Amino acid sequence: MSVLASLRDDVLAANLELARRGLAPETFGNASAIAREEGLVVIKPSGMPYDALRAEDLVVTDLVGRVVDGTLRPSSDLATHLVLYHAFAGIGGVVHTHSHYATVWAQAGRAIPCLGTTHADYFRGDIPVTEVMEPSEISSRYEENTGHMMTRRFEGLDPAAMPAVLVAGHGSFCWGIGVADAVHTATMLEMVARLAFDTVTLAPIATPISGALLDTHFRRKHGPAAYYGQPGGA
Amino acid sequence: MSVLASLRDDVLAANLELARRGLAPETFGNASAIAREEGLVVIKPSGMPYDALRAEDLVVTDLVGRVVDGTLRPSSDLATHLVLYHAFAGIGGVVHTHSHYATVWAQAGRAIPCLGTTHADYFRGDIPVTEVMEPSEISSRYEENTGHMMTRRFEGLDPAAMPAVLVAGHGSFCWGIGVADAVHTATMLEMVARLAFDTVTLAPIATPISGALLDTHFRRKHGPAAYYGQPGGA
Amino acid sequence: MSVLASLRDDVLAANLELARRGLAPETFGNASAIAREEGLVVIKPSGMPYDALRAEDLVVTDLVGRVVDGTLRPSSDLATHLVLYHAFAGIGGVVHTHSHYATVWAQAGRAIPCLGTTHADYFRGDIPVTEVMEPSEISSRYEENTGHMMTRRFEGLDPAAMPAVLVAGHGSFCWGIGVADAVHTATMLEMVARLAFDTVTLAPIATPISGALLDTHFRRKHGPAAYYGQPGGA
Amino acid sequence: MSVLASLRDDVLAANLELARRGLAPETFGNASAIAREEGLVVIKPSGMPYDALRAEDLVVTDLVGRVVDGTLRPSSDLATHLVLYHAFAGIGGVVHTHSHYATVWAQAGRAIPCLGTTHADYFRGDIPVTEVMEPSEISSRYEENTGHMMTRRFEGLDPAAMPAVLVAGHGSFCWGIGVADAVHTATMLEMVARLAFDTVTLAPIATPISGALLDTHFRRKHGPAAYYGQPGGA
Repeated sequence: MSVLASLRDDVLAANLELARRGLAPETFGNASAIAREEGLVVIKPSGMPYDALRAEDLVVTDLVGRVVDGTLRPSSDLATHLVLYHAFAGIGGVVHTHSHYATVWAQAGRAIPCLGTTHADYFRGDIPVTEVMEPSEISSRYEENTGHMMTRRFEGLDPAAMPAVLVAGHGSFCWGIGVADAVHTATMLEMVARLAFDTVTLAPIATPISGALLDTHFRRKHGPAAYYGQPGGA
Repeated sequence: MSVLASLRDDVLAANLELARRGLAPETFGNASAIAREEGLVVIKPSGMPYDALRAEDLVVTDLVGRVVDGTLRPSSDLATHLVLYHAFAGIGGVVHTHSHYATVWAQAGRAIPCLGTTHADYFRGDIPVTEVMEPSEISSRYEENTGHMMTRRFEGLDPAAMPAVLVAGHGSFCWGIGVADAVHTATMLEMVARLAFDTVTLAPIATPISGALLDTHFRRKHGPAAYYGQPGGA
Repeated sequence: MSVLASLRDDVLAANLELARRGLAPETFGNASAIAREEGLVVIKPSGMPYDALRAEDLVVTDLVGRVVDGTLRPSSDLATHLVLYHAFAGIGGVVHTHSHYATVWAQAGRAIPCLGTTHADYFRGDIPVTEVMEPSEISSRYEENTGHMMTRRFEGLDPAAMPAVLVAGHGSFCWGIGVADAVHTATMLEMVARLAFDTVTLAPIATPISGALLDTHFRRKHGPAAYYGQPGGA
Repeated sequence: MSVLASLRDDVLAANLELARRGLAPETFGNASAIAREEGLVVIKPSGMPYDALRAEDLVVTDLVGRVVDGTLRPSSDLATHLVLYHAFAGIGGVVHTHSHYATVWAQAGRAIPCLGTTHADYFRGDIPVTEVMEPSEISSRYEENTGHMMTRRFEGLDPAAMPAVLVAGHGSFCWGIGVADAVHTATMLEMVARLAFDTVTLAPIATPISGALLDTHFRRKHGPAAYYGQPGGA
């Protein structure tokens, strides 16, 4: 199977998984993947219901967003995905969701504090939130500027250790080595966002876990000293 | 198929969809549609469980609420629907629900603030709530006066840009070009109501999104400059 | 079919419905019915999982709680049910649940205020909560005294207009003409308890609806002037 | 069937039940059982999805954690389980979960107060939470030290009357005579944690139930004077 055909399958599976897990209610969400050597991106078409989606509906574009294959319009968030692919050289897939609790934190304009080891297993620190956009950033090239809000927020942050961001007043974006990883991160983001939401409801001044605990948990699952899971496993 | 037969099918499908989506627990909800040229309204019969509902159970009335076809009593909320059809000339369907979060805002007597783009995609501003009814408005023609509470609240508002309203202490009404649109709006109202509920729980003084962001999102989906979805699509 | 056989069927169906609706998690709940002329009560056996329950497992007792048919122990709450049957002459069925939101109000020791018409359709006013039991009431005849806590709370209240009560620190009891009505009331109690819970979370000093609105909604569904539903219907 | 084969079946069933009940989202959870005479423990392999788990995937270790049967790595939490088996002589099974509400209390660093009889039926008093771990306890032998945090917290407590503990900033551990009991306790812990969470949301200074009521309910279900359920039943 060609790289592109394989990528189409991955992107279709990722979009269906977003819907199946309830992370993208209605048509609020999209997944894409990039073939860097070929200079191609595969993305969900705009506004299409997940239950009708087929591999041949997916849209293939080049890295500046020109459609090179497909008869449908690409997701209106394509320009945002492209900014992320340009800025984060190590990522192969991006997903955007309006999953409930992640969106609640985004609407509140608050980063998600690291209050437990569930969080530390996936995200090395607080999950950041962008600044609010200026009217001039909204009135022109809105989707592209949404991408710039995120990459600006990531100055000094490592997208491999922090594979998600909240867009203030909007929703969330996640990424990963492949698009399936990005979907898994979106799943964990929602779980962690819900845990943190209820924790601060119960204890408004809950203390984040220590740096020592954060590092131990993150390193149990990631990097050369990982000992969680099976050798060679996911 | 005649206009009326087609309308019956739409109203049956809309009522079943309300139940299927959990927007009308027990028998708390109803959907209707209007054939303006024929001067007829099709509505759910009163107090009937959704799982037993058939197209022939639906009640057809004229525009002052007299039954012209059907052996069952129409929904006790018929008079409310009729007031909306008279006041909002552009609408073809109305749904009433007691969906959980919309009802919570209605019971709290609070409009739903526009705290994110999910909201802005469907509702151009805060979703309004009626005043509390006076005893004299309740003791006589209660259902009709419920309609007047809503239309009075809409003085100066455009029902096409704000297709929903909360009735204080009660529940919500939504409308649209057709009854299927009204059901879709009721679905989005519940989603937006839940997002706003949790957002103000997390951040009691959360700031509404800017007018620029509100307008951009609403216009992405509605009106001549819309670019979300596929050309000619829903 | 004999009165008793019919009652067994009703009580089995009621217990299964409690489980199916999630009102009685694990084995936390039970339903009973009374045949007043025969002086018999049919009740769930103690601690039995709902999915294994058969009509022949149900226990038949007389009105002082002596088993007259059945090989299993009756629910440990039998004595509570019997107190209610003695005190409220018009009821034919009783259900006890630990449904989530009703139990939350009971644990908080707060009556459920009437904050909306959904509540008023079923309960004519605030849903009362008992006093906390004294140690002497707990150490002996605990279950019987639980019943007395409720009937004492109902001095001056009409059990036909208020078919439910919260037991402080414990859970809820509902009743009705028949046991199916009691199950339906338990369903509505949970719905209303959840609506009120979220309403006071959003608006801690939310105002109860007016007496005029309360009466209009209760009378739409109950009594000689009811006009909700179909004539002769449920 | 050998003791070990039987234990494998129990541990497989327990892990699957954790997943089925939503107590162990993703791979966040594990169950083990001990054969004390044989000096063997059976535990879930690390990081393995529940839906792929088979009895032969389970790992058998001795009481110091050396694998004696199985080709996969044992759960990274094995050392924690072993500390509990050493400290609590009467237990035969242990489960670890990240179930939502129990984790919320753990992240808040708060014990779960006994606010109702549902709680008292299973846990004789407040469900304790450990201290926060020191960096030196985290940097070396982290999982073993997690176990020591729990057993230190249980000085003066009876693990038979209090079969669960919260680990601050992490999750919960439950135990029982057998691993099926431990799973049932984890189910009740989550139910009780959710009830208490919403109760303190509604009434931040809610009063715990009296010692008299706590004892009566616990003794109805446990010990020589128990009268809940059927004689000889579970």
